[in-house]
Amino acid sequence: MNLSMIRYILGYVLAVEGLLMAPCSLVGLIYGEQEGWWFLAVGAVSLALGLLIARKKPSSQVFYLKEGCVSTALCWIIMSAVGCLPFVFTGEIPQFTDAMFEVVSGFTTTGASILNDVEALSHVSLFWRSFTHWVGGMGVLVFVLAVVPLSGGSHINLMRAESPGPSVGKLVPRLRHTARILYLIYIGLTLLEIVLLLAGRMPLFDALTTSFGTAGTGGFGIKNTSIGGYSAYIQWVVAVFMILFGVNFNAYYLLLMRHFRDAFSMEEVRAYLAVILGASAAVFFNILRMSRGVFDALTKAVFQVASIITTTGFATTDFDLWPQTSRLVLVLLMFIGACAGSTGGGMKVSRILIGAKTVIKEFGSYIHPKSIKKIKMDGKPIEHEVVRSTNVYFIAFTTVFALSLFLLSFEGRDLVTSFTAVAATINNIGPGLNQVGPTCNFSFFSDFSKWVLIFDMLAGRLELFPMLMLFHPALWKEGLSSRRERNK
Amino acid sequence: MNLSMIRYILGYVLAVEGLLMAPCSLVGLIYGEQEGWWFLAVGAVSLALGLLIARKKPSSQVFYLKEGCVSTALCWIIMSAVGCLPFVFTGEIPQFTDAMFEVVSGFTTTGASILNDVEALSHVSLFWRSFTHWVGGMGVLVFVLAVVPLSGGSHINLMRAESPGPSVGKLVPRLRHTARILYLIYIGLTLLEIVLLLAGRMPLFDALTTSFGTAGTGGFGIKNTSIGGYSAYIQWVVAVFMILFGVNFNAYYLLLMRHFRDAFSMEEVRAYLAVILGASAAVFFNILRMSRGVFDALTKAVFQVASIITTTGFATTDFDLWPQTSRLVLVLLMFIGACAGSTGGGMKVSRILIGAKTVIKEFGSYIHPKSIKKIKMDGKPIEHEVVRSTNVYFIAFTTVFALSLFLLSFEGRDLVTSFTAVAATINNIGPGLNQVGPTCNFSFFSDFSKWVLIFDMLAGRLELFPMLMLFHPALWKEGLSSRRERNK
Repeated sequence: MNLSMIRYILGYVLAVEGLLMAPCSLVGLIYGEQEGWWFLAVGAVSLALGLLIARKKPSSQVFYLKEGCVSTALCWIIMSAVGCLPFVFTGEIPQFTDAMFEVVSGFTTTGASILNDVEALSHVSLFWRSFTHWVGGMGVLVFVLAVVPLSGGSHINLMRAESPGPSVGKLVPRLRHTARILYLIYIGLTLLEIVLLLAGRMPLFDALTTSFGTAGTGGFGIKNTSIGGYSAYIQWVVAVFMILFGVNFNAYYLLLMRHFRDAFSMEEVRAYLAVILGASAAVFFNILRMSRGVFDALTKAVFQVASIITTTGFATTDFDLWPQTSRLVLVLLMFIGACAGSTGGGMKVSRILIGAKTVIKEFGSYIHPKSIKKIKMDGKPIEHEVVRSTNVYFIAFTTVFALSLFLLSFEGRDLVTSFTAVAATINNIGPGLNQVGPTCNFSFFSDFSKWVLIFDMLAGRLELFPMLMLFHPALWKEGLSSRRERNK
Repeated sequence: MNLSMIRYILGYVLAVEGLLMAPCSLVGLIYGEQEGWWFLAVGAVSLALGLLIARKKPSSQVFYLKEGCVSTALCWIIMSAVGCLPFVFTGEIPQFTDAMFEVVSGFTTTGASILNDVEALSHVSLFWRSFTHWVGGMGVLVFVLAVVPLSGGSHINLMRAESPGPSVGKLVPRLRHTARILYLIYIGLTLLEIVLLLAGRMPLFDALTTSFGTAGTGGFGIKNTSIGGYSAYIQWVVAVFMILFGVNFNAYYLLLMRHFRDAFSMEEVRAYLAVILGASAAVFFNILRMSRGVFDALTKAVFQVASIITTTGFATTDFDLWPQTSRLVLVLLMFIGACAGSTGGGMKVSRILIGAKTVIKEFGSYIHPKSIKKIKMDGKPIEHEVVRSTNVYFIAFTTVFALSLFLLSFEGRDLVTSFTAVAATINNIGPGLNQVGPTCNFSFFSDFSKWVLIFDMLAGRLELFPMLMLFHPALWKEGLSSRRERNK
């Protein structure tokens, strides 16, 4: 195991996180809030420490997938541990576990909160909360890749470990270039949303934080009513942008390159939009009777479906009070999730598609035993490798889910609360049902359960394997032995 | 599609079912119950009709897996439709949907009932209810195979379609011989249980019906309190036999052949027993405080864990009142299910094992990318075919589950009721939680929901594919065209 390379990457991430805290200090200055100084202090220390750690270049550039997984997992853990310190120091979230939960929820773009009263927070902390969504949405390491020169297999293996979805589309031959293009699309879309929100007379601070939450498909609101207090125009803008940020970014790249036909024929994006359409229709008819007219029902239905399938988690209404069919549709959407290669979480539409195609193919082979067909996506055959890892993902997901549910059951809460709490964190959504419904929060859980959910958020965001790898005994053995070797 | 062969098999199944109703008439004679005559009448008509249909030998013996699937699915549907008629005619379950639900629940060894008061039923009907468990447990077609001379690929393809678990163990070269050996083991174990129950001073009628329910891992009781009213000795006998009937029958065959080492080293059986041990311990400690002493807690824990993992569904206590951890453990056990090649339902331990091994192998390949390992079971490498169909099974299972949940949600019941109702039927268990808990029944569901659950029971028992195949358009097209050809 190449420990020195992992150290080098960790150093850079720390340094970058230090820089990312700078805007918070600026917010502190503008609003005259003392909390800003804590962000400046933590940011400065993080930057200095990071540069110190990354000072020595790694001796070897050898970098395999396992190194990619381990550094990604460690980066996210350390980033969160540092990112939650300002909350603790300012006393706004005094308990470390709570602060960690909140920041992990931010970086993983979950949006589940332990705060009873969001509006009591300073502007500085509110800004940081939403900003972590934006940072975590596209991936911190992708950002690091875009600015830091690395070689060896590091680029592809870091991206494979951090990027959501079954396969990383190689947009352009050079991955560093890909990372930059992705970030440019991301920034562009975010700016567009900010402008459109401002046009709807949303205050600048609200527009910024809401856009960050939408772009990262995070879901932290700055109001206790989430997006419910804003105008219908703003709700529609947010809904549309949630859907846009749940689209596979390859589609935007293809649009940029003027490959319009390829962009519009992407199977995953079509399926994603079809699911949104179908689910919105089902919810619309289901809640029509309890809404104030057709437009109100339509707004609520589309907004909530978009919010859950993209795993954002904003709310405009207490959907926990909706009829059972709508509640169930939302629960099912939680697991589907957004497109691969988007900022959304969940299992990803492409995985569901691959799964469905596998089943259909199996049926076909029952009826025509001699036909040998390969599963295709967008006209190209899917490699066996991808199908297998998709299946492995399903099984690993179910296992982690069941285990988390078991660990949470010690609290003795009702099954729906426990089930949707795990579903909402592992899929990076935010709110669930019953005691973790959209008007509630996660503060009542014990510290033990909170750590289980923190793990679930990280495991969900990094698509299980990097986090699970940390528990693999062979890895520890190898890590220790390579440490010993170096010390000789 | 070889329609004439399917017709031939259907005829034989009808005839066999007619014969199987004869014992019920006998029970009617003994207890002087008029209901017995209805069973005689329906049985006689079924026998006559069956022989008439099977009179003409099929023109072609060609028989592929698709024919196996279709005939299995159709057999089970027709068998149930005929089997429920006596309930309707005697007026004990006057509604056809209810009667169908009850009989499908019987044949599929689910044990979910729509009866509010089981004890109000005549002995004849109680006997038939339990007897359907016994018949359905080992599989009707396996029975037909054991007595009817068929050739072509029919044996293996019928067994593949009806037998539970990822692969049919070829015990002996000639499958007809295998079917006979399996039935002999089955009959032997059932007789042993009857004797042991009689030794515990259980009345003969109770001993017979309870043994039928245990052997088929069905779960219909003849008392409103299920097994709760019997002595601790009887509860332990039933618990042990539930566990025994959940064991892969290959193990018994190996024992019979004196291959003791092979029998005791079967990975699936070991894993199955380990899960029972672990789950029992968890439940035991969890319910210890609310029980009357250690022995009471142990009896209840082992009985309920055995009852759920083997998908029998007997109850000695209202486990819906247990603490959350125990309730969750039971829900998780519902999905694991018994061993492949047993009479139990669920996903089967071997599938879970194969799934777990796939994940572990994937991790290994991350850490040592160059090592190529095959997944092994009992020391032998598992064929790629089996791994793939296991994965396909998981996905198909999840899809059917989610769809059923959606269809049930129109009723507006709480999520736990809907979720466990689907889980308890698709896994062929019987009772679930909340409104379908062990002291409740399924009578309150609408007819629509009942048909959804009937489908789930059949799909679960036949391991999804045969039932799902019936909806495949290609099959219909082919079936119609081969009909047209024949008529020319």
